[in-house]
Amino acid sequence: MSAQSEFALIEKYFAAPAREALHKHIAHGHHDVALGIGDDCALVNLRGQTAISTDTYTEGIHFFAGTAARAVGHKALAVNLSDCAAMGAKPRFVTLALSLPADAAPTATFLRQFSEGFFSLANQHHVQLIGGDTTRINIIAAKSSGASVSTKTRASASATTRAPLSVTVTVLGELEPKQAFLRSGAKAGDDIWVTGATGFAAAAVQQRLGKLTLSRAAGRLADEALDYPQIPVQFALALHGIAHAAIDVSDGLAQDLGHILQQSNAHAVLNDELTQRCQTALGIKGVDVTLAQQLALHGGDDYQLCFTAAPKHATHIHALAQTYGLDAIKIGEIEPTEQFDRKRALRLARSGKTTAVPLKGFDHFTR
Amino acid sequence: MSAQSEFALIEKYFAAPAREALHKHIAHGHHDVALGIGDDCALVNLRGQTAISTDTYTEGIHFFAGTAARAVGHKALAVNLSDCAAMGAKPRFVTLALSLPADAAPTATFLRQFSEGFFSLANQHHVQLIGGDTTRINIIAAKSSGASVSTKTRASASATTRAPLSVTVTVLGELEPKQAFLRSGAKAGDDIWVTGATGFAAAAVQQRLGKLTLSRAAGRLADEALDYPQIPVQFALALHGIAHAAIDVSDGLAQDLGHILQQSNAHAVLNDELTQRCQTALGIKGVDVTLAQQLALHGGDDYQLCFTAAPKHATHIHALAQTYGLDAIKIGEIEPTEQFDRKRALRLARSGKTTAVPLKGFDHFTR
Repeated sequence: MSAQSEFALIEKYFAAPAREALHKHIAHGHHDVALGIGDDCALVNLRGQTAISTDTYTEGIHFFAGTAARAVGHKALAVNLSDCAAMGAKPRFVTLALSLPADAAPTATFLRQFSEGFFSLANQHHVQLIGGDTTRINIIAAKSSGASVSTKTRASASATTRAPLSVTVTVLGELEPKQAFLRSGAKAGDDIWVTGATGFAAAAVQQRLGKLTLSRAAGRLADEALDYPQIPVQFALALHGIAHAAIDVSDGLAQDLGHILQQSNAHAVLNDELTQRCQTALGIKGVDVTLAQQLALHGGDDYQLCFTAAPKHATHIHALAQTYGLDAIKIGEIEPTEQFDRKRALRLARSGKTTAVPLKGFDHFTR
Repeated sequence: MSAQSEFALIEKYFAAPAREALHKHIAHGHHDVALGIGDDCALVNLRGQTAISTDTYTEGIHFFAGTAARAVGHKALAVNLSDCAAMGAKPRFVTLALSLPADAAPTATFLRQFSEGFFSLANQHHVQLIGGDTTRINIIAAKSSGASVSTKTRASASATTRAPLSVTVTVLGELEPKQAFLRSGAKAGDDIWVTGATGFAAAAVQQRLGKLTLSRAAGRLADEALDYPQIPVQFALALHGIAHAAIDVSDGLAQDLGHILQQSNAHAVLNDELTQRCQTALGIKGVDVTLAQQLALHGGDDYQLCFTAAPKHATHIHALAQTYGLDAIKIGEIEPTEQFDRKRALRLARSGKTTAVPLKGFDHFTR
């Protein structure tokens, strides 16, 4: 594909939909975007405090080569909205940096579907794309030592390997000062909640790697969780005044909750709810309780919101969840501790026994 | 390198210097960063209007494999500060998304030097790193058709090829509403200025490609322009009330000025100043005026600021430039036009004759 035709595709599938969404935004009476895409910078008028997060989403590392383009576009944005929601901030604006493999440029169909996935989610949450950069990316000729510094500019195109597609999204969200849900905010006695079951996305990964076989129905559930995570943005905003601490489950419940425990200097005990739900929903048989527990507590990529709140709010939290079509699950309690101890910070209570749960999860680097 | 030791290096060379710079920032009485690196989002208090830009900087595309790590760190940030300056905004905060080749992880020395280049420039301009994401990037097994969709997850490590290092920086700047330098702001009769000579960076590229031989002194000048562009941030801020339009010269003067002309519905005539300076500084002999003109008007990567202003400000602009240690060069004039015509928009006057200059420049995709 020529650079010229690629430029036309970027204009058609990214700049044009961004302008269209912005026109609608302005037509609805919003004056917060002074200048959209097309100059050296975009210009926006932000209110209150600004939450900022950046996430890179790379083929072969964060998603499988062969993943539907629509899912890639959806999730590259979703993981960033999730960071914003976990802060209690309302996502408003995003930039999109897209690196396309030079020797195997994505087809027009791929870019169209990526765009549909991206803008469908952006429009759902009234998030404006206000900037971006599209570049090529190529493989590099490496010295035989494997060192990262080579004197050659680029490797010649190979029939068998290419550079990956890579997407970096930066999100700006708004919130009132002192309203953020910090990882350090959990209090002894708090209930621990998640906005839905965990382990489904990790089950989809295991199935795609050929290490797990799910029923067709369970497979669909798992694929949907991996490819099209729904981010509880509105629900998170409704938790102001209720939630003490929050984090999104990206690397696995135990690892992410571990950040809350460490930064709050707290320990926690989990009930068996997540493991049981994972086992039931995915149809994993009784002998595989260990597998279900691994998926539910250590599997990443679910992008559920995990938060803590005082027990008096439990009824209200269930009602809010119902309002937003979610299934708020109480998964444990924050316990007082004098000194955070990584090895004893998280325990699982099952059948009257408690066992230590390691604060580890899914590692992108060793998948 | 294990994921664990890499995590330690990222902590040492990115998170720690960011915290250190933030502590100094707070010690100097600034209260605009409510929360730095370490939670789901950073939290900042921005004043006025916010300028936002994102740029990706990729090995093998935007910089040569083998470029000094310090230069890579410097320039990945510089190109973003340049966008901010070209808008007349004061750069305040940046996020850094770093993709490291999985099968040839950068050495500790590389990360240290990258970090030094990045933070040296950031600290110079009092810009805070407030967020980031470090991920691996790997080559992908491609189908022989070269299509972008493969059913394999990743290619096996190759002795001869690897994925490139890629850096995406997003910058947030502050400015007062209605003070931005827009590409659409040029007025008939305006002088056109740049903050220094152009074509040096492109000459360095040509020399590294083996297509041009420079003297040792000229080569150093060219290398410095390519690897360590200095961004006229303070000078740009001093142009409020003076500059009508501005853009940074990233893709080549003719192409970038062309954006101003197109968006301002204007034409322009250039004098021979840039070509002559390029010729003199680089020691390109008389017969090579065509080459000097190509480099000066179409060579990219110089990151000089190009702006327009009413002629009455000329003396003040020279004085300001002197204050900030720059060499403001008047390179032409904006002419009135009824209808922008791409083929006639830019002309070069030399020895009493004018010739049309195509609005094209350096193309990252076809370098």
